[in-house]
Amino acid sequence: MNSVERLQQVFLRSMESDFSEPEWNRQPDTLYAPQRYILSMGGKRLRPVLALMAAEAFGSNAQLALPVAHAVERFHNFSLIHDDIMDKAPLRRGKPTVHETWGVNTGILSGDALLVLAYKSLLKSPKHILSDLLDTFNQTALEVCEGQQMDMDFESKERIEEGQYLQMIRSKTAVLLGCSLQMGSLISGASKKASKSLFNFGLELGTSFQIHDDLLDAYGSPEIFGKKLGGDIRSKKKTILWIHLSNHKPDLLKSILRSESDNKIAEILSAMESSGSRIYADVQRKKHFDLAIASLQQVKSESCDIKDLESFANWIYDREV
Amino acid sequence: MNSVERLQQVFLRSMESDFSEPEWNRQPDTLYAPQRYILSMGGKRLRPVLALMAAEAFGSNAQLALPVAHAVERFHNFSLIHDDIMDKAPLRRGKPTVHETWGVNTGILSGDALLVLAYKSLLKSPKHILSDLLDTFNQTALEVCEGQQMDMDFESKERIEEGQYLQMIRSKTAVLLGCSLQMGSLISGASKKASKSLFNFGLELGTSFQIHDDLLDAYGSPEIFGKKLGGDIRSKKKTILWIHLSNHKPDLLKSILRSESDNKIAEILSAMESSGSRIYADVQRKKHFDLAIASLQQVKSESCDIKDLESFANWIYDREV
Repeated sequence: MNSVERLQQVFLRSMESDFSEPEWNRQPDTLYAPQRYILSMGGKRLRPVLALMAAEAFGSNAQLALPVAHAVERFHNFSLIHDDIMDKAPLRRGKPTVHETWGVNTGILSGDALLVLAYKSLLKSPKHILSDLLDTFNQTALEVCEGQQMDMDFESKERIEEGQYLQMIRSKTAVLLGCSLQMGSLISGASKKASKSLFNFGLELGTSFQIHDDLLDAYGSPEIFGKKLGGDIRSKKKTILWIHLSNHKPDLLKSILRSESDNKIAEILSAMESSGSRIYADVQRKKHFDLAIASLQQVKSESCDIKDLESFANWIYDREV
Repeated sequence: MNSVERLQQVFLRSMESDFSEPEWNRQPDTLYAPQRYILSMGGKRLRPVLALMAAEAFGSNAQLALPVAHAVERFHNFSLIHDDIMDKAPLRRGKPTVHETWGVNTGILSGDALLVLAYKSLLKSPKHILSDLLDTFNQTALEVCEGQQMDMDFESKERIEEGQYLQMIRSKTAVLLGCSLQMGSLISGASKKASKSLFNFGLELGTSFQIHDDLLDAYGSPEIFGKKLGGDIRSKKKTILWIHLSNHKPDLLKSILRSESDNKIAEILSAMESSGSRIYADVQRKKHFDLAIASLQQVKSESCDIKDLESFANWIYDREV
């Protein structure tokens, strides 16, 4: 069993045991059942694993970082509940979303409560470090909201610059990976400088991860990816591929969109290839991965064992799903 | 100028000056404008005034409690944004609600960000007290969510017991008043015992306040109240009056509801009088006010000057709007 699997199990065991505690069995259950439902849906648990791994890298037992691991996983799931409402998404991981099951109002409210429970978990950290953790967490939480708002604002904009896209995915996705690592290392006694380098490692890895997501949606292996390819194009999502194509070959994109063809998605995918959008995205994915590794090297000198974090990064970079 | 007006001004000046700080001028403005809009709408600012007043009662300058005053006001306004979405309310204080102006999605998201900003304000408190403040705040925030969920669950229930109603209004409304007082006194160095007594003062005063709200909606002076009377009855809200009437004279209520009369609201108001519901509510309002004053007396012995808090309670008890 590798370190990712081992730490996933540490986290999941802790979550399961929490669910039988009084905190998770308060009334009304109509508020808490949706939260347990989304937390139990599965997923790679990237954020809590990163928090635990960062603590281990600085010589602590992973258990020490469980309060921050739960905080980031709760925060992530709060944002999923609310994002799914905003996107009117019926399914998540193949199961009905919270608002589909319990209604929009309970979705809003159980998301709110889960955000509060994230702070409640953070409060279980050692007191001497609480203020630093809160500061990091607040800043990240705000940026995630800002990233989601930017993403919504993009929908009504004709032209998005690549720099704006980059800022959006960094806020919406990447900072929370950075925050998980930063808090996990802080709780383990890392210096502010080292924890900031780990934040940057997470930020760049998260940026590479999100660009990879855009690429997998367009060009992934259909059997492995498990979803129909081209979903982003179908919903006209402003991915890095879409932005590159529409900024570099605006007439080509417009002519496909205006055409009567019933094979538009394949044509856009092919245009993204021929116009260099796919290669551009892949170069960016590699660039941010390299920046991540460079940040990780910086903490090597600070008595930090980066082996597992490096394996984690490679696993993320090589994923096909 | 009395203490309430003085502390309202202290708070409003601080809020206005905050709005020119970098914290309130981040991008995208589509996320922050709705928050500034609702915070600027006015209102009695009960919660921040209580936080500041509690700090003064224990001998501190009100300025010391500004971080908790902003935290409770931001939290309150976060809950208003989300509640208005859930209630599909077009207006608040005679102005369009946030979701009416910017859409539901931005309403959800700017509410989320305002909740995070409440925690950000709390973090400006002195470090030695931060953990106690967070503990109080988290507990209260969860209870407010629970109260709102109970309120929504009530809509689909045939029979609500008075005890359930009481629990709902205590969670949804009263605990936040208690929390404001508790945090304001903790930051001022009050003992845990004294701050808990102040919490109870706020809890009972808030309970009396909410019952008063139900009564004003039904029997207030129309010119002073400023809204059409009987709004709660029109929307079949499960107020203490409605619950008392439907539990004590179920057939009377049903026969009015089933009738062809186009004067149902006046008939229900009159039934609430004749069946003793109005008197019952007024007795409860007085009972919880008396419990509030009794809790306040308990802190008198702890070198706390309760004069202003007592005036505040009387002002709340005597209000007509």
